[in-house]
Amino acid sequence: MESVKLGLIGLGTVGTGVVKVLQQNADVIKQRLGLPLTIKQIAVRHLEKDREVKVDRHLLTRDPYDLINDPDIDILIELIGGYEPARTLILSAIEQGKHIVTANKALLARYGHEIFSAASAKGVDLGFEASVGGGVPIIRALREGFAANHIQSIYGIVNGTANYILSKMTDEGRDFHEVLKEAQEKGYAEPDPTFDIEGIDSAHKIAILCALAFGAHLDLDRVYAEGITHITPLDIAYAREFGFRIKLLAIGKRLDDAIEIRVHPTMIPETNLISTVDGVLNAFYVVGDAVDKNIFIGRGAGAFPTASAVIGDLVEISRNIISNHCGGRVPPQSFLMGSIREVAIKDISDIVTSYYLRFSVVDKPGVLSKISGVLGKNNISISSVIQKGRHTQAAVPVVIMTHEARERDIRLALEEIDQLDVVLEKTVLLRVEEGE
Amino acid sequence: MESVKLGLIGLGTVGTGVVKVLQQNADVIKQRLGLPLTIKQIAVRHLEKDREVKVDRHLLTRDPYDLINDPDIDILIELIGGYEPARTLILSAIEQGKHIVTANKALLARYGHEIFSAASAKGVDLGFEASVGGGVPIIRALREGFAANHIQSIYGIVNGTANYILSKMTDEGRDFHEVLKEAQEKGYAEPDPTFDIEGIDSAHKIAILCALAFGAHLDLDRVYAEGITHITPLDIAYAREFGFRIKLLAIGKRLDDAIEIRVHPTMIPETNLISTVDGVLNAFYVVGDAVDKNIFIGRGAGAFPTASAVIGDLVEISRNIISNHCGGRVPPQSFLMGSIREVAIKDISDIVTSYYLRFSVVDKPGVLSKISGVLGKNNISISSVIQKGRHTQAAVPVVIMTHEARERDIRLALEEIDQLDVVLEKTVLLRVEEGE
Repeated sequence: MESVKLGLIGLGTVGTGVVKVLQQNADVIKQRLGLPLTIKQIAVRHLEKDREVKVDRHLLTRDPYDLINDPDIDILIELIGGYEPARTLILSAIEQGKHIVTANKALLARYGHEIFSAASAKGVDLGFEASVGGGVPIIRALREGFAANHIQSIYGIVNGTANYILSKMTDEGRDFHEVLKEAQEKGYAEPDPTFDIEGIDSAHKIAILCALAFGAHLDLDRVYAEGITHITPLDIAYAREFGFRIKLLAIGKRLDDAIEIRVHPTMIPETNLISTVDGVLNAFYVVGDAVDKNIFIGRGAGAFPTASAVIGDLVEISRNIISNHCGGRVPPQSFLMGSIREVAIKDISDIVTSYYLRFSVVDKPGVLSKISGVLGKNNISISSVIQKGRHTQAAVPVVIMTHEARERDIRLALEEIDQLDVVLEKTVLLRVEEGE
Repeated sequence: MESVKLGLIGLGTVGTGVVKVLQQNADVIKQRLGLPLTIKQIAVRHLEKDREVKVDRHLLTRDPYDLINDPDIDILIELIGGYEPARTLILSAIEQGKHIVTANKALLARYGHEIFSAASAKGVDLGFEASVGGGVPIIRALREGFAANHIQSIYGIVNGTANYILSKMTDEGRDFHEVLKEAQEKGYAEPDPTFDIEGIDSAHKIAILCALAFGAHLDLDRVYAEGITHITPLDIAYAREFGFRIKLLAIGKRLDDAIEIRVHPTMIPETNLISTVDGVLNAFYVVGDAVDKNIFIGRGAGAFPTASAVIGDLVEISRNIISNHCGGRVPPQSFLMGSIREVAIKDISDIVTSYYLRFSVVDKPGVLSKISGVLGKNNISISSVIQKGRHTQAAVPVVIMTHEARERDIRLALEEIDQLDVVLEKTVLLRVEEGE
């Protein structure tokens, strides 16, 4: 064997990064692998487009099946994203016995079980380190490093765009829409930022991580996702008064009979190390029963960090190919497919956590008593209250931090409270993760 | 194959942790591996000793060669520590074709090249995740996750005892010896704490990490190690005034023609995320040319976190055994043995960094001018000075932060300065890592 042959589908930002790093770091890759990684063919949409990287025109094709049907190609790299044609291409390539490396988080979050099962049945390897956390080797840690553990929980800041916006709002006291616009101008946010700011991208990523961490087959549509569009500088400032920061957190927890998996803006204590992870960085906080807590921080996106993850997978799979063709040595989800259980996801209304509630009320005596009355009636107990001095505005804020309560009870209470005469606007609700 | 058979040498703290986690988490390990991991025999010094874990008396032997010569045992776990007999036992076991898992950092720091070469020649696997950073999967990240990268630098807080002591001194303004004594009483420091507080343990760990990161064969005796015994609350307070924290840092940097590898108390900016890693936690900061910076934080010691790392390696190697016997698929240092270069380690006197200097001087006009004169003559330029108001004591502190300078020049300057009449005590020197 003289080299490991790669077929690449997609030559966008990440694809270009992969080609560049394969070229620039060919020396160190060969020192580690013993053989070079060679791109045999690249499927692109437009043959004639100008590229940011030097690629031999003869490598390009418009038909991805040229790669899939080439018996010479060992590993297929899928970097086009989205559900179709990515899903069909990957399944066809697995059928042809190709090993797969992909960065496609949307695809794996929704069709992971189908793709993992197909790869496992065929005994081919499937690398997807790049699908979550860019260059951070979090998937490798879950699949291999923490294999001795029952993973108890994993949560993280998994979307750099949302984290950048929240960090800017926090540091500069600025408004969401203003910061979003600036982020779009700087290229940190997409022209259509919905996936990032509404928590959808984060939901995809935490679904993949939970599948790995808990050996679970789960339904993406049951993952609760709430974005950051309603976060205001006022709430960020109050959070700080209580010693908290607001982060868009993706949370997965193993319970006895189900898992919790949810994405929402979350107040975390300033003493928690990941509360200081700002800007475009990603952070992952994993707790296992043997290893205790582990934190991983790094660039969650970008051409080069993502290429680092893609090529890390290529090296891993190539080592399998070279060493006795031991493909399939690590099951896609780390658990054998026969051990994967369909798990129930707790409905968001059933979760128990503590809450930050900001009420906009008229500045009259007796208001707090009315609100706390409704909370008490719904089994919600108060841990602290901030009610600032008299204002001249019509609406004044009253902020209440609760002890642990059931979300269903909170929602019932807020429904009633928001109809009180003394309450002028819809109450703001933020969930709190205590600890550290 | 019904199970993977293990031989364990050493049933101390970590060995007991491994047995416990293998028992408690047998379910999840089997779900991931498909087979159980079974301890076939354990070599101990005292057969009759009371153990913290339930072990069948028939598994115990006093002769480690019972394990090494048993053709039934697939993987040998070495947890006795120290150079001998560990080195001879591991080499004999490799000769017998056994795969090895070890947590022995002292051994690998000094005899790594010999052991790596033997394992590589025999085609057996050698797992040593537990030798550095307890449960933090930093070795897996360097061997596999970052395989696409030229690693440019790695530095970290790699000794929990020293970090605990420095954290306590920082938070409580207390003296080194007082905090050390308390740490010993609480069991956080050994009765003989030399290895931890003098930076020797940290030197072992950074030597292993640099061998992996840079594909290097290096001479442990050339690693500069300076401990924390001379750190005072006064210097911690001054560091804070400049916006820095003092940490015992183990540093490895790849230069064009050599590497830098050194351990010493270091001032790092408070804005650097790892400056807030306190207590017994470890932290690793890795920079690769593709992946950019990555940070790993977790428990660097303790029976269960270390057992998590040991068993993670057992699962990795077992997956190799089960999948077509592809042992040796990952070279011990990630680089093929043929690519490992002997590297020169820069002498500490040749490094270039910035410095914190605290002079104890008489409180007279003209002192600063004398000191800065000597510094200037030695090519050392000053970035800032703190000279507090007049004191009644004989000695007053003058603190100077320098721009980047060569250590040799600094030492020459301090030799001259410490002989000035106006200087009353040996000058305190701390190195600074800028950035982030």
